[in-house]
Amino acid sequence: MLVGSIEAGGTKFVCAVGDEDYRIKDSIHFPTTTPEETLQKAIDYFKKFDIEALGIASFGPIELRKNSPKYGYITSTPKPGWKNTDFIGKMKENFDVPMFWTTDVNGSAYGEYVMSTLSNEKIDSLVYYTIGTGVGAGAIADGKFVGNMGHPEMGHTFLKRHPDDLDFKGICPFHGDCLEGLVAGPTFDARLGKPGKDVPLTDHVWDIMAYYVAQAAIQATLILRPNKIVFGGGVVSEAFLVKVRAQFKELLNDYVEVPELEKYITMPIVQNNGSATLGDFALAIRELQD
Amino acid sequence: MLVGSIEAGGTKFVCAVGDEDYRIKDSIHFPTTTPEETLQKAIDYFKKFDIEALGIASFGPIELRKNSPKYGYITSTPKPGWKNTDFIGKMKENFDVPMFWTTDVNGSAYGEYVMSTLSNEKIDSLVYYTIGTGVGAGAIADGKFVGNMGHPEMGHTFLKRHPDDLDFKGICPFHGDCLEGLVAGPTFDARLGKPGKDVPLTDHVWDIMAYYVAQAAIQATLILRPNKIVFGGGVVSEAFLVKVRAQFKELLNDYVEVPELEKYITMPIVQNNGSATLGDFALAIRELQD
Ligand SMILES: Nc1ncnc2c1ncn2[C@@H]1O[C@H](COP(=O)(O)OP(=O)(O)O)[C@@H](O)[C@H]1O
Ligand SMILES: Nc1ncnc2c1ncn2[C@@H]1O[C@H](COP(=O)(O)OP(=O)(O)O)[C@@H](O)[C@H]1O
Ligand SMILES: [Zn+2]
Ligand SMILES: [Zn+2]
Repeated sequence: MLVGSIEAGGTKFVCAVGDEDYRIKDSIHFPTTTPEETLQKAIDYFKKFDIEALGIASFGPIELRKNSPKYGYITSTPKPGWKNTDFIGKMKENFDVPMFWTTDVNGSAYGEYVMSTLSNEKIDSLVYYTIGTGVGAGAIADGKFVGNMGHPEMGHTFLKRHPDDLDFKGICPFHGDCLEGLVAGPTFDARLGKPGKDVPLTDHVWDIMAYYVAQAAIQATLILRPNKIVFGGGVVSEAFLVKVRAQFKELLNDYVEVPELEKYITMPIVQNNGSATLGDFALAIRELQD
Repeated sequence: MLVGSIEAGGTKFVCAVGDEDYRIKDSIHFPTTTPEETLQKAIDYFKKFDIEALGIASFGPIELRKNSPKYGYITSTPKPGWKNTDFIGKMKENFDVPMFWTTDVNGSAYGEYVMSTLSNEKIDSLVYYTIGTGVGAGAIADGKFVGNMGHPEMGHTFLKRHPDDLDFKGICPFHGDCLEGLVAGPTFDARLGKPGKDVPLTDHVWDIMAYYVAQAAIQATLILRPNKIVFGGGVVSEAFLVKVRAQFKELLNDYVEVPELEKYITMPIVQNNGSATLGDFALAIRELQD
């Protein structure tokens, strides 16, 4: 059996074909240009295979309420040309197979969730944050995606400011100093005039980042009580998560029970940014079986 | 048909008996003293009726994972005498009927959810915050309670501090300036040396409170995307919520779609603090039907 995955990012698309064991059989990636050109490349790619279902994890905001006339659309994105793109409609014109449509971070969350259960972890809930060019999160509870009127946008909540960071205004165009405005990758350039990869972990700015990311983990913990919180994205490293766990412990002050922190706050299990592709395969297969 | 409700608060217990239309047939309340004495009063009360099921909404923290040996217990509460109280065990010794066990705020959330659907609102999710002596919240998504490893404790997340309130340390014994530490009823005494009921709504402290409560509503919005957020508890009034809505609008900056704010951020529909009792009746009946 073959199923397809599209990880539709704002910068690049990753298309892949996998089997019933979520093994990648083939894959391709190309830059995100216009919707016409980019979706056509994805279509041409999958025409070469006999896929039985398709999982799509897209940048957003997207419409995922099935009863909406805009179901399957990328809706109000600021990305030029992509506002109001009928992604699923275009795919359905070309492939008569079941499709699962969700956000990029939900796809990653699902991939991590499936891998955790396959690794015999006893989990029924998981939150996946990406800290990259922007900050977003997807969440699963009892095997289903969290979010009722739409998908979560956990990257834009407000946080207690670090005393040594009070002068930084934040870079979110909507909110200034929301989580994304305080910890997304480009904040390094804004705070220090150089990219994050050039800022050593001994720089105090990393403690400030950890203070904020720990508060995000506390929000997810106290609102959802998940089994696990996974952090992915270019900004995140194991060494950074060591700092995040320390701040989390101090701030939460044992108020609620959480698993051992090394297991609770972690990097992705799936390697090479593959969480979303694996999640898409699993969601495609689930859609086929329903 | 008769079903029972216990709203077990830290200060008082409210026991009630209702029918299949959630109408209160009889009720009683008494102060919360020792577990032995208080639970016995509840038992004596329900012995006078022929109840077919019982819904219990209790102060916490409580254990609500059915596979835990401590299921049905009030667990690590700081309330003297109540730590490790086997609430459901004691009830089961006396009544051989189905019981639904949840937190006080979940009970209220469920009552508001049921009343909203009975009022023909199209909703499948709701968050209920109480702002009283403490701050707590319960949440429903797709008709089920939110919370996997345990119940939510949304009253203890951190917030961006108001510029005119930076010197206030907050009163939460665990976190200082978490939401509860910044907006619970006793913060009026701590900030101004007098109780909240003596502080006119023109006092700037109410704007500061609204700034924090709006951020709590933003957290709930961006993480859960619910249909409705209800605020109850002694601190909340319609006039206060007018301020909260204004701050919410400004802070969220239309980042995600929410219902009309007058319908989205509201006082309880059920009058006289009756949300939890109604919720308990509905949960008791649901338990009977399962
Ligand atoms: N080692 C690093 N330390 C901190 N930030 C980094 C590091 N490497 C990359 N970044 C930042 O991560 C961001 C890219 O994140 P990434 O998750 O790779 O992409 P995207 O979010 O666009 O999909 C950029 O802002 C980049 O500067
Ligand atoms: N009008 C009011 N304005 C502000 N605070 C009030 C007002 N009335 C009561 N409170 C405060 O609300 C708290 C009690 O909240 P309530 O929900 O009635 O009880 P509890 O949380 O103990 O169940 C007290 O701290 C009290 O000072
Ligand atoms: Zn933002
Ligand atoms: Zn607290």
